[in-house]
Amino acid sequence: MENDEKYMREAIRQAKKAYALDEVPIGCVIVYEGKIIGRGYNRRTVDKSTLAHAELLAIRKAGKKLDDWRLDGCTMYVTLEPCQMCAGAIIQARIKRVVVGCMNPKAGCAGSILNLLDVERFNHQAELTTGVLEEECSEMMKRFFRELRERQKKMKAAGNADYGK
Amino acid sequence: MENDEKYMREAIRQAKKAYALDEVPIGCVIVYEGKIIGRGYNRRTVDKSTLAHAELLAIRKAGKKLDDWRLDGCTMYVTLEPCQMCAGAIIQARIKRVVVGCMNPKAGCAGSILNLLDVERFNHQAELTTGVLEEECSEMMKRFFRELRERQKKMKAAGNADYGK
Repeated sequence: MENDEKYMREAIRQAKKAYALDEVPIGCVIVYEGKIIGRGYNRRTVDKSTLAHAELLAIRKAGKKLDDWRLDGCTMYVTLEPCQMCAGAIIQARIKRVVVGCMNPKAGCAGSILNLLDVERFNHQAELTTGVLEEECSEMMKRFFRELRERQKKMKAAGNADYGK
Repeated sequence: MENDEKYMREAIRQAKKAYALDEVPIGCVIVYEGKIIGRGYNRRTVDKSTLAHAELLAIRKAGKKLDDWRLDGCTMYVTLEPCQMCAGAIIQARIKRVVVGCMNPKAGCAGSILNLLDVERFNHQAELTTGVLEEECSEMMKRFFRELRERQKKMKAAGNADYGK
């Protein structure tokens, strides 16, 4: 759709907030009638909470904004394909459409391992668009994990040096 | 296991708190090393939140108690088979074992529609025990929906009477 890139850009901005906290950089916004009504970024480690995924935080905020647990007519923009919990929450919240930046082949549940957004026997299905600003979303993830591995390598080397004293 | 009925009884006590609020009566407790570290009951309508399912509220509390997003080694007791969101959260939280009261053939995701607790390609699987205090859990649900239908019928009748004036 016309504004998909614009809203995905805001989801990327959210993901960068996670990046700055050394969290896996995943960001999300929820849009209703052309307005962003919920934003979230991954805070799982800093919040020490399973539920602090970008999507769940955005769903919570959007629900508060609409004063309803139902997010009928809303579109979610998320930089990475949702996990099983977040895909489940999207269906529970009755979100109309989900726009994904890049896929998560090892754990994604909007097509990679399963597609929980389109299970006929569930009482709701969400439309799905993938690959919006895909390269930017994907590069951000790759850079994060490359830097993480480098940090881990350095820490390991420092640890070995200590033992060598 | 030995104490399954004891902990399911506490999950039923939680469910009754939801019942008292006219919420679908679903209750949950999470046990770690023989201690209840999280309780929750469905508050979706009163809280106007998609995320206010019994299981998610219990997961949040258990995480706070353990000061960790990982609930390794924990067992969840829940009166009704979890939905797709809650089953997903169980896997994300690395919960070891799930004990279910009664099944939810129309929406359950621990065996009824799907079994998200045992997907080989996910990075975690949870053990599953079903049918603990099944009749009590099932009766509670049936009574709730029977009463709800009666209330709705009465309201409809009252509405028709108004129109007839």
